[in-house]
Amino acid sequence: MTTFRVWAPQASKVEVKIESQAIPMVSEEAGWWSARVASAQEGADYAFVLDGGEALPDPRSEWQPKGVHGPSRVVDHSAFVWTDQGWQARPLSSGIIYELHVGSLTPEGTFHSAVDRLDHLTRLGVTHVELMPIYEFPGTGGRGYDGVNIYAPHHAYGGPEGLKCLVDACHARGLAVILDVVYSHLGLGGDYLARFGPYFTDRYRTPWGDAVNLDGNDRDEVRSFLIDNAFMWLADYHVDGLRIDAVHEIFDASAIHFLEELASEVRKLEASLGRHLVLIAESDMNDPRIVLPPEAGGYGLHAQWNEDFHKALHALLAGEKKGSYCDFGSLGDLAKTLAHGFSYDGPYSSSHERWHGRSPVGLSGHRFVGSLQNHDHVGNRALGERIGHLVSLGRSMIGAAVVLTAPFVPMLFQGEEWGASSPSPYFTDHQDPELGQAVRERRSRESAAFGLDPDKVPDPQASETFLTAKLNWAEVEDEPHSTLLRWYAELIRIRREYRDLSDGRLDKVKIGYDEQARWMLIKRGDISVAFNLGEGLQRIPVKPAGATALLRSDLQIEVHNDFVELPPDSVVVLAGPDALLEEVQISGMDG
Amino acid sequence: MTTFRVWAPQASKVEVKIESQAIPMVSEEAGWWSARVASAQEGADYAFVLDGGEALPDPRSEWQPKGVHGPSRVVDHSAFVWTDQGWQARPLSSGIIYELHVGSLTPEGTFHSAVDRLDHLTRLGVTHVELMPIYEFPGTGGRGYDGVNIYAPHHAYGGPEGLKCLVDACHARGLAVILDVVYSHLGLGGDYLARFGPYFTDRYRTPWGDAVNLDGNDRDEVRSFLIDNAFMWLADYHVDGLRIDAVHEIFDASAIHFLEELASEVRKLEASLGRHLVLIAESDMNDPRIVLPPEAGGYGLHAQWNEDFHKALHALLAGEKKGSYCDFGSLGDLAKTLAHGFSYDGPYSSSHERWHGRSPVGLSGHRFVGSLQNHDHVGNRALGERIGHLVSLGRSMIGAAVVLTAPFVPMLFQGEEWGASSPSPYFTDHQDPELGQAVRERRSRESAAFGLDPDKVPDPQASETFLTAKLNWAEVEDEPHSTLLRWYAELIRIRREYRDLSDGRLDKVKIGYDEQARWMLIKRGDISVAFNLGEGLQRIPVKPAGATALLRSDLQIEVHNDFVELPPDSVVVLAGPDALLEEVQISGMDG
Repeated sequence: MTTFRVWAPQASKVEVKIESQAIPMVSEEAGWWSARVASAQEGADYAFVLDGGEALPDPRSEWQPKGVHGPSRVVDHSAFVWTDQGWQARPLSSGIIYELHVGSLTPEGTFHSAVDRLDHLTRLGVTHVELMPIYEFPGTGGRGYDGVNIYAPHHAYGGPEGLKCLVDACHARGLAVILDVVYSHLGLGGDYLARFGPYFTDRYRTPWGDAVNLDGNDRDEVRSFLIDNAFMWLADYHVDGLRIDAVHEIFDASAIHFLEELASEVRKLEASLGRHLVLIAESDMNDPRIVLPPEAGGYGLHAQWNEDFHKALHALLAGEKKGSYCDFGSLGDLAKTLAHGFSYDGPYSSSHERWHGRSPVGLSGHRFVGSLQNHDHVGNRALGERIGHLVSLGRSMIGAAVVLTAPFVPMLFQGEEWGASSPSPYFTDHQDPELGQAVRERRSRESAAFGLDPDKVPDPQASETFLTAKLNWAEVEDEPHSTLLRWYAELIRIRREYRDLSDGRLDKVKIGYDEQARWMLIKRGDISVAFNLGEGLQRIPVKPAGATALLRSDLQIEVHNDFVELPPDSVVVLAGPDALLEEVQISGMDG
Repeated sequence: MTTFRVWAPQASKVEVKIESQAIPMVSEEAGWWSARVASAQEGADYAFVLDGGEALPDPRSEWQPKGVHGPSRVVDHSAFVWTDQGWQARPLSSGIIYELHVGSLTPEGTFHSAVDRLDHLTRLGVTHVELMPIYEFPGTGGRGYDGVNIYAPHHAYGGPEGLKCLVDACHARGLAVILDVVYSHLGLGGDYLARFGPYFTDRYRTPWGDAVNLDGNDRDEVRSFLIDNAFMWLADYHVDGLRIDAVHEIFDASAIHFLEELASEVRKLEASLGRHLVLIAESDMNDPRIVLPPEAGGYGLHAQWNEDFHKALHALLAGEKKGSYCDFGSLGDLAKTLAHGFSYDGPYSSSHERWHGRSPVGLSGHRFVGSLQNHDHVGNRALGERIGHLVSLGRSMIGAAVVLTAPFVPMLFQGEEWGASSPSPYFTDHQDPELGQAVRERRSRESAAFGLDPDKVPDPQASETFLTAKLNWAEVEDEPHSTLLRWYAELIRIRREYRDLSDGRLDKVKIGYDEQARWMLIKRGDISVAFNLGEGLQRIPVKPAGATALLRSDLQIEVHNDFVELPPDSVVVLAGPDALLEEVQISGMDG
């Protein structure tokens, strides 16, 4: 027995089609239709027929075994045997996030094969796995941001059961799971939603077409469509949090913004499930409102990605001034993000062509996720280069040291920890030839604008492009990859061991730097990080005197009583004279 | 090898005395003294001698095997074998707190004997155990609020190892542990602290003597004394949170109030340990600032006890108008606390003799702990009566239903769940005859003020008074105790099962009542609670129609389509027609 339900407020007749049978559905309140079908069990394939038209996938389909255009399949969530009883995610403020793309993490590109890589993550010290969108998108070789059936884990990744296995395996290893969801646009390349109801509006436009209708007169069920989706991942798939893509393209002029409603509903779910849940936004707005608590007029999400931090760090290391990096490049920019959260907390931004951002004063650094690179920073580049393809090993090590000692929640992008040789270019697998061509042309235009020869830029629709992104795990043992991997693991160990690195208070971050000589000293309580981006050997003063090196990127680094001497492109992590003493003070007495 | 350290800024000579040996200590920075003693191991007894005076216990003593006046003993925290690897407390918003007093919970009155009662708590559905203060206080039969050695688990309860065993046993059962700490006053009945340094100030006075010096020029080490204490419980004893006694008697005019500093330091500790931690305040101020987040100008504690809720409920059920209950007694008072957090959010309070409180508008109900009774409500009564000693069983059941369906975090006081026959009067065990007499006289005066014969009021210093408070676990199986216990367990089960009861949004609480007829209907989404405190059978209208009874306190309760009929002193919990439907909607489809 299965009860089928669907929202189709404009239809005058709705049927559910199972095999060759079309079963009429009964009209309920508020545009909903339902039918109880005795013969339909888990695994039964079905579709909906509106007003006698063609068979359409369920907007809330939880399984699309044949992709976005195929039938939907009934899922019974009670069938899976979870082994994560009593599981709780650790606090996000204590986390090291690892962003991964199921399709390119492993040769197989499935949830099950991802399980084999989890022990690598726990050895590294990762605490939170963040999955790039895993629900049904067109084709199989996509990054996931063109989701169509947002309730259905992708069939090529392993469908609903595969995702549950991966989440369960993460929990078994103490890893929390964050899922990337896209609520700004829906259905690109498989758009049946609009036939069911007013899911979209032309009041707003996103770069990807019509916006989701979150504030029209008929918006209530559309908001529920997204909030119920969030609830499904969190409750039925035991996911510990959501990362919400591009919130700057979520348009809502209601008194209660969609994100605020989502956050307050998730808090209710958290109390009901008795499990800690988090929401993280990707935002290009530099608007503290997203993570301010509701009591301070905010939306109450837990954290947001800090784009300024990435840009300041990347521009500094790579010396790039193109695109959005044109706003950055000085040590002062990096210092400002580290001590104030945003660089652009009001100043004019050339890349945005406007006065940009607002001061996040008073917010904890733990409200921000900081990364040297993520899927966008790499994938939006014409050639998909990682930082290690652009700069020296020493500079990669500087970048890692800054991220992993920052007051923000650090995030790594898969393979970053060993400087993977594979690029991660932009790739799509649109089945609709027009959409495929449009994507191709857009990438060509963008490359040309950056002065690149479009013929040398990988074709996003070519399957080889997707295949180049697959990580080569065999290289991890080789130099220089293995050195970099040890560097990341040591930095994470130090972050755990020294309590001052867990302090989210930005007003406690102290920074000294010399813009001409190009060195910087970042002081976080008793732990300091000093690096040299200048051309010659440099002396950097250290206070208080008597620090010792915890970790150095170069054997030529010398630590003296009140200064350190660093060769170019090198970095050292220092513990002040009180650091160890403070460690033992916690237990009162070192017996 | 042990390093002894002590803060004694006014001393010109400090020695550590081990057995008959006095070892000179070396003066360090900022008034600290230290000595490394090769022969001292875990278990060694010691004392400090200031300027050649008498041997004094260590202010940070972690073990006082012979009580507040005896020697201190070295503790090695690395010796205990914890079994709670990976432990995380569930969210407080999902919690059911159980307040217990180690000394009177069991005949033995020890940490170890408390372990035997934990399975009772998990069967009941409790999630958080809150221990009344467990550190060294004078004598053995005390409630714990006159703490002297605030770093030392009480020797009569089982000392440091006993506490660790209890915490570990709680975690093994999924129970979080909250510890009650008193930071408003210190050392009553064993005051050696003042000899060591400026721990106290006469700028402020508490009902228990001089206040702690939190804002003098010489306050920094005093603040550290308390914050390090909090850190010790949370880090070394794996405790999940602290309940801070009487924050209205913690005086601090600094720019950063002690409570705000404590909360922000604990957030740092949380990120460092990677374990969820909470802080709960007991406050008589009705001041939302305590639980407002720092971004909204608050101190950032997680929750505070809601005294208005208790008083409104107690006054209504017991019909008492004496003492602080004089401000309450109407259904309207209860309705206001349920829908607005405080009754006194600004109005004039007769018991406080002033305009009282401030609106907590915008705060979640989960920022408040709500109880029918706690150790103070019972123990501050001259005879220590519990609610069940004052009202009918039906009224006790009404009280439980209101607490366990409220938008606040519910808390029970040990034995409440079965209506324990034992009272819980005020008891002390002061060894100082003067202090003992003073306590006796104060209780007599208070009783007389309530019109009671002081001769009939138990002597707080008499050991029989303490003994009467011990729970009689044998009675749990008997009627009416077993009925009440089932009632509590069912209410907790319903709170878990129906998501609407986990909603902290106070603006979603809808209440209807008739002050003359004395019935009330509390609607929390699809779940409603209706009770009748009037004298006859009453009809209470229910909307929407079609509700079903989940739980009724009386077999004579009748549920009709759009009303319920309740005999006096009865209560019913109802599920609206959409409640079950909503349950299955969560998983999309009931396959």
